[in-house]
Formats: sequence, structure tokens, C-alpha cells
Amino acid sequence: MAIQKPSLPKGTRDFSSEELAKRYYIINTIREQFARFGFAPIETPSFENYNTLMGKYGEEGDRLIFKILNSGDFTAGVDESDWQTKNAARLTPQISEKALRYDLTVPFARYVVQHQNELTFPFKRYQIQPVWRADRPQKGRFREFYQCDADVVGSASLWQEVELVQLYDAVFTSLRLPVTIKLNNRKILSGFAEVIGESDRLIDFTVALDKLDKIGKEGVVSEMLSKGIRQEAIDKIAPIFSLSGSFAEKVAALREILKASETGLKGIEELEFIATAIDSLPLATATLDLDVTLARGLNYYTGAIFEVAAPREVQMGSIGGGGRYDDLTGIFGLKGVSGIGISFGLDRIALVMEELGRYPESLGVTLEVLCINFGQAEALASLKLLRTLRSLGVKAELYPDAAKMKKQLEYANKKNIPYVVIIGESELQKGTFVLKNMQTGEQKELTTAQEAVTIMNGAAEIRGQ
Amino acid sequence: MAIQKPSLPKGTRDFSSEELAKRYYIINTIREQFARFGFAPIETPSFENYNTLMGKYGEEGDRLIFKILNSGDFTAGVDESDWQTKNAARLTPQISEKALRYDLTVPFARYVVQHQNELTFPFKRYQIQPVWRADRPQKGRFREFYQCDADVVGSASLWQEVELVQLYDAVFTSLRLPVTIKLNNRKILSGFAEVIGESDRLIDFTVALDKLDKIGKEGVVSEMLSKGIRQEAIDKIAPIFSLSGSFAEKVAALREILKASETGLKGIEELEFIATAIDSLPLATATLDLDVTLARGLNYYTGAIFEVAAPREVQMGSIGGGGRYDDLTGIFGLKGVSGIGISFGLDRIALVMEELGRYPESLGVTLEVLCINFGQAEALASLKLLRTLRSLGVKAELYPDAAKMKKQLEYANKKNIPYVVIIGESELQKGTFVLKNMQTGEQKELTTAQEAVTIMNGAAEIRGQ
Repeated sequence: MAIQKPSLPKGTRDFSSEELAKRYYIINTIREQFARFGFAPIETPSFENYNTLMGKYGEEGDRLIFKILNSGDFTAGVDESDWQTKNAARLTPQISEKALRYDLTVPFARYVVQHQNELTFPFKRYQIQPVWRADRPQKGRFREFYQCDADVVGSASLWQEVELVQLYDAVFTSLRLPVTIKLNNRKILSGFAEVIGESDRLIDFTVALDKLDKIGKEGVVSEMLSKGIRQEAIDKIAPIFSLSGSFAEKVAALREILKASETGLKGIEELEFIATAIDSLPLATATLDLDVTLARGLNYYTGAIFEVAAPREVQMGSIGGGGRYDDLTGIFGLKGVSGIGISFGLDRIALVMEELGRYPESLGVTLEVLCINFGQAEALASLKLLRTLRSLGVKAELYPDAAKMKKQLEYANKKNIPYVVIIGESELQKGTFVLKNMQTGEQKELTTAQEAVTIMNGAAEIRGQ
Repeated sequence: MAIQKPSLPKGTRDFSSEELAKRYYIINTIREQFARFGFAPIETPSFENYNTLMGKYGEEGDRLIFKILNSGDFTAGVDESDWQTKNAARLTPQISEKALRYDLTVPFARYVVQHQNELTFPFKRYQIQPVWRADRPQKGRFREFYQCDADVVGSASLWQEVELVQLYDAVFTSLRLPVTIKLNNRKILSGFAEVIGESDRLIDFTVALDKLDKIGKEGVVSEMLSKGIRQEAIDKIAPIFSLSGSFAEKVAALREILKASETGLKGIEELEFIATAIDSLPLATATLDLDVTLARGLNYYTGAIFEVAAPREVQMGSIGGGGRYDDLTGIFGLKGVSGIGISFGLDRIALVMEELGRYPESLGVTLEVLCINFGQAEALASLKLLRTLRSLGVKAELYPDAAKMKKQLEYANKKNIPYVVIIGESELQKGTFVLKNMQTGEQKELTTAQEAVTIMNGAAEIRGQ
């Protein structure tokens, strides 16, 4: 067989243990807070039936879903005319009955409907799994990446909104990232469109408004005009382009703008409920901000809309988002189940953590002790010591060969191992071992594993771990 | 859009939080021991290039690999004659350039070769990820399942064999499963074939021998005869069908049988090295046993062969296995790298744990405290308490609506929540809360979250958690 130069499919990544330690630090922080807030994990299969996924994400989404080729003779039973005309679009569902998960939301909806009789509602689940998209890979965008979602279905209570703001604060406080949680409400956006008499242009209106950050007021207005929204209409809501001040001040201004819209006023009431609760339960490090330009996934959200912005010193898009939806499970036949969910953008959070140096130093240490190998009898004594060290939770190993001391110490240095244990002939006879701190060079002759653990823990505390 | 009755592709599974708690208990136990033994995790992408996987697992394996259909117009550029003759086998590589991971071994080999300049050898990695096979699903066999592998490459030292036996013992002791670790050596099997003058029938010989458990001595002999191995040859090694006694006694008998084979004697030497070390480092709960019929993956292993048998009271095939190999990375161009690896059969271990009731009781508790909701002001006070409880590590939530008390308590019972917190009007005025133990019905009026935690921890200790 010819030798192949190994490579990866584009848009995919290998993760080394150093990279994984960082990713798991973030994932475990999120997981821990999800659990404290009463969310329990579920997992769904990597592939779903073709029909479960197709038609849920729009035309572009359908195109980006990875389809799995049927096993065996996939040509059997295909439509002859589709085959002869090489109609890829029509052939795809005939030769592929499964597809890779594109997000966690549709599989979650499928899960809720399929297991509805086993679940207790309100049902709070979280899910941290990879998804796959046939997108053009670019910096920070991959064909395989993780999503981290938490959702509650079966409760329309606004306390869920309050809890999810608290959850974002808890996670990003743990990660030492003081973020801004931007809040909006679909009903506010609908109210704007209603007030200016352009309810049927709601999408065009919000798509334009969403760009305020990037293209400024003039840009937004000119886009709105180009979509057929009249100048007089835009003038009516002009104050929203320059809302400022505290959350409460912005709300007061909005109340004036939206006074003629029942929907808009309902949106204000919801915003105020959340803001009042958060006033009484101040966030630890996050800032809650009202952002009426926020529209993400508008077709989908029916109430609160969230987005999390990274700390200001980093250039980065949103690192989280979510909102309330009213009919997630309808497509699978379960109507009238209100839900709300948030997600965390793992890859972007990782980039922010890296840039701000927020990872604990101790993450780099995957191995704490290396026993130097001086030959058969000494190695056996080392393994005995290793067993006790490991039972005390220490990560430790024996160098596998009685190689030159220099080579063994080089291995310890390359792997950043903070301690080596030396059991040579004299230690073997005395029943002792030498613990050497690789950073300070300090050596101590000891007799029990517990003594070594005490020294290592003491040094770790001094380093502030 | 028509409503779809939701279902899963065959051979795949959803996991509820109760099921995941059990799976993660096993995975985290394995992960923890891997780390203590100096193995660090890596992760590779779910799909690899078609050519990385194909041709590595034999014809049957190639057939069972899930291929991913190329995105866009996959028909462009296909060979016209293959298309006209609907030659599925020849069309597959033309319309599919990626395939789902079939095991963790080939991606690991690809990883080592691709990253060889960044790695420190001996390189010890573990990998716990799902794999996919288009196998016919049946009881205990799935199309998506996890593999858990630990390997060392770049060291021929027999201390690795000793360490891996210790690692198996450590994991299964933690899981409270006293297993039998069966040991064999490829060189012993080669020695048998050499001694009877049938070296070119080694595979037929070992395939037959491997069935001794199932079909008995007569069955094995008749299969060997049918493969053209002569009766006189079989007679020469007849004692191996009835080896018994201690590890040392079996080795002594083997030494006699294999005295004419240099390879066989080398195998005995290796077995003895391991057995001697384990004598000095007794296993905590596992039993090490010599099993000369063990041949798993013979084409692949060159030295030690391991297999783990579940505790005797359970009917179950092997729950782990592995061995030493000499040329894992050769196919990707890196020659002469010796390695050794073991794997854990997660699904089977889960079945054994279930059958023997080895999961800790506390796994069932995903939520520890539910705050009863009596209305706006009380709910807000509950959220304040919740914040402190959560910061102390307690998993807790507020019932989202001021529903009838009965409904809220039913929710707590259905979800097995051990405690509820009651803040009604009177508690609100006094600044207290009531903690109710749902199992005993006991209630205590308290003022701080810490008091609640103390009571809950005390009760958990009494239950022996």
C-alpha cells in the first residue's frame, strides 16, 4: 500500500492535551453552573434522519447540512430519470437517509416531542456536543465545532429570563470575563414597526436596525429607505438611534415612543420585570444593557432576545446569545410549548480567554511527578511509590527505560513536569526516595508518599494555585 | 409543512440525564485514572479524509465505514461509465471525500505522524470519543458508540505492560468490579505454530485455538484438522488445551512445550517479567491470568495481548482489551515506532455496572433544592437565597410560577429533589426560610444558606454518600 502523507479535512481540528485542558476548563465551568441552576444534561446522536433536519434551517441551511451516503448499493432504487439527468438535489434524499447534526436546537425539539411522556415540565436541559456545517472555513469558523445550549421548555414565566441573565453572569464571572449582557424583546421591535405603520416590513426594518453599530444612523436610514420604508415613518422613531443613559432611562424613552402600540408596551413591561429583578439581585461582574437594535434570529424569537458581548478590550463578535420562542416543538407535532434558551460560543470564548490570559496557570501541568528509572530493582521500588502517590490523586509515571539521567530529565523538562523522584541504589537500600523540584532544583530525601504530597501542595499554594 | 413523527436512525440512542449521569460516572473514573497514570487526552475530528480510513480495516471494515456525501453538485466530474453502470463501489470515492471515524486507532496513528515534531516520545495519550459503524444493530451493538483508549507509542519497555495491568486494576477497583485480566503473548502463539511445524498456518491455528472456551478441545482439534493441520502436530501441543494452576505453574508447563522455539521462549520471558512485577505490586482487586488461547487482533499485535473479563457472576463478553503492536504508524510513513494500548468497552461496562448495582446512590440527584414560588416578592427573596446556595455549590432552582403548592411539590417529587425551601409571607417578613426534607418530612426554619448546606451535608453523610 502506498504511504499517505497524513492530513485533516478542511475546517476540522486536532486538539492536543494542552488545547483540551483549556477547552475543558471552559466547558466544565459552564457545566458546573448549568447544574447549579437546575439544568440537567442530555445527549442526542451525531446523525439524525434526513427528514428530521431538512427544511428546518432555510435553503442555505439545507445546503450546509452534511449528508451521509447510504451504505451498500446506494444506487439501487434511485429514480432513473434523476440519475440520467444527474439531478444532485433530487438524488440526495434518495441516496442519503441520514445527516449530521447541524445545531442542537432541532434535535432538542425532536427529543422533547419524542420523549414528552417521560419528561417532567418545565423541562430544563443543557447540551454540549459538536455540530457540523459544510460552511467555507475561515478564521474562527470551523466545519466541526461545539455548541453549548441551555433551554427551559414548558414555562412562560419571566423568572426564566431573570435566571438566564443570572446564569450568564455566574459563568462569565467564574471565567473572570466581565461581559455585557444585551437585552431586547421581539415585542419592542414589533412595536416600532407597528408605530410607524410598517408591520409587514418588520424583517427589513430590523435587519437594517441591527446594523446600527456597523454602518451608523445614516447607513441604517438609507437601507430602510431602499427597502421602501418612508422617511416620515423613520422620523417617528428617530430617537431610537440615539438612546442613551441607564437601563431605566432608555426604558422611559421607549415608553414614550411606543405609547400607541399595545405589543410594544407589553415588551416594555417584560423588560422592566427583568430589570427590576436584576436591580434586587445585582450581577456579580456582568453589565445588563438594553439594546433595541438587537434582532438575532428574529423569525424564531417571540419575547426576550439576549446577546453577550466580550469585555471591551477585546475585538470579538458576540460570545453568547439566546431568547424566548413560542413554538419550537410544533414542527414535530407538539404545539403551544413556550421555551427560552441561551447558548455559549465556545470557540470565541476560548479566543477571548487566550487573549486576556484568563486561564489558570496550573492547567499546563498534565503530569506532576516523573520517577527516574535506574534499572529493574529501582524501577520496581518506584512503581510501589507511584501506586501510593496515585491513590493520593497525584498524576505520576515512571520513565520506561533506564536511559541516561540527562535524557530522562530532558523528558521531564519538555513535558513541564514539576517534580522528579529519584530512587537510586542508595535510596533503595535505605527505603527512601529523593523528591526534586525541577524549577528550584531543591531536593529532599523522604520516606513516605504523603510527605511528598505535602511538599507539592505547599509549593502549589505558594505559586497561588 | 407536514408534521413529522419524530424518530431516531436505527442503532443510535438519545441519552437522558439519568443515563448520562451513569455514563459520566464511568467515563470520569477512567479519565481520572488515565490522568494519574500519566496519560493526557487528545481529540481528533469526527470525520477524516476518505483515504485516511479506507483500506485500514479490511474489506468488511471498509464496507462498515459511513461515508459523507460531498456537498453541492456531487455528480460533477464523476466517471461517466461508472455512473452509467451504477457502479456504487467505484462511485463512492468520487462522490465522497470524507468518512466518519470508525475507531480511535487509525486517527491516533494519523495524529502521531502528522504531529511527530511537536510530540515528546514516549507519547502517552488517551482518547474518549464516539465512533460510527454501519453494522447491523442488535442488543448491545450500536451504530454510534464510545471508545476509550489509552496508548503509549515510542517505548518498547515492558514496564508499559506492567503499568497497563495496574491501570486496568485501578479503574475496575474504583468501579468496584473485581475483574480478571487475561494475558497472552503473540510470541507464545508463534512459538506453538513453530514447534508443530505449521508457522504458515499461524492464523488458522490461533483462530481455532481462540474457540476453546466455546467449542471445547474436540471442536478445536477438528477445526484444526479441517484446516490441514496434522494430527501429530496437534498432539505435540496437546497439553495447552488443559493448562491449569497458578500463573507460574502454567508458565512452567509452557516452557517445556516451547523449549525448541526461540520466539516462544522470548514470549515466556516477557510473560514472566510482567508476572514477577505484579507479584511485587499486588493488584488491588483484579486477578491476572495467563490464557494462551487469547488471540484478539492477532494480525496487529506483536507482543503482549490483554483481555478483561467481567466479574464471574455476570454473563458478558470481554469488557476491555489491548496489546503491543510494532508498526501502527507505518501506514502513514513513520516506521519503527513500537506501541502498546488498551481500551475499555464503555457500553458493556455500563451493562455490568447496572446488573451488579455498582452505581453510587447519589447519582440520581440532579437537583438538590426547589424553592416554592408564592408570588413576586417571595420569589425574589428565593432567588437571593438561591444565589448564595449556588455559590456554595448547591444545585437549586425556583419553581417558575406561583402555582398551587400541591403542583409544585409534585414537581419536586417527580424529579427526586430531596429538599424544598419555603419562603412564604411570614418568612419574608422575618427574613427566614423553611428547609423541608422531602423524604422525612422534617422542617427547619433557618436564616442563612450555610445552615441549610450543613443540614443537607449531614443528611447525605448519614445516607452514606
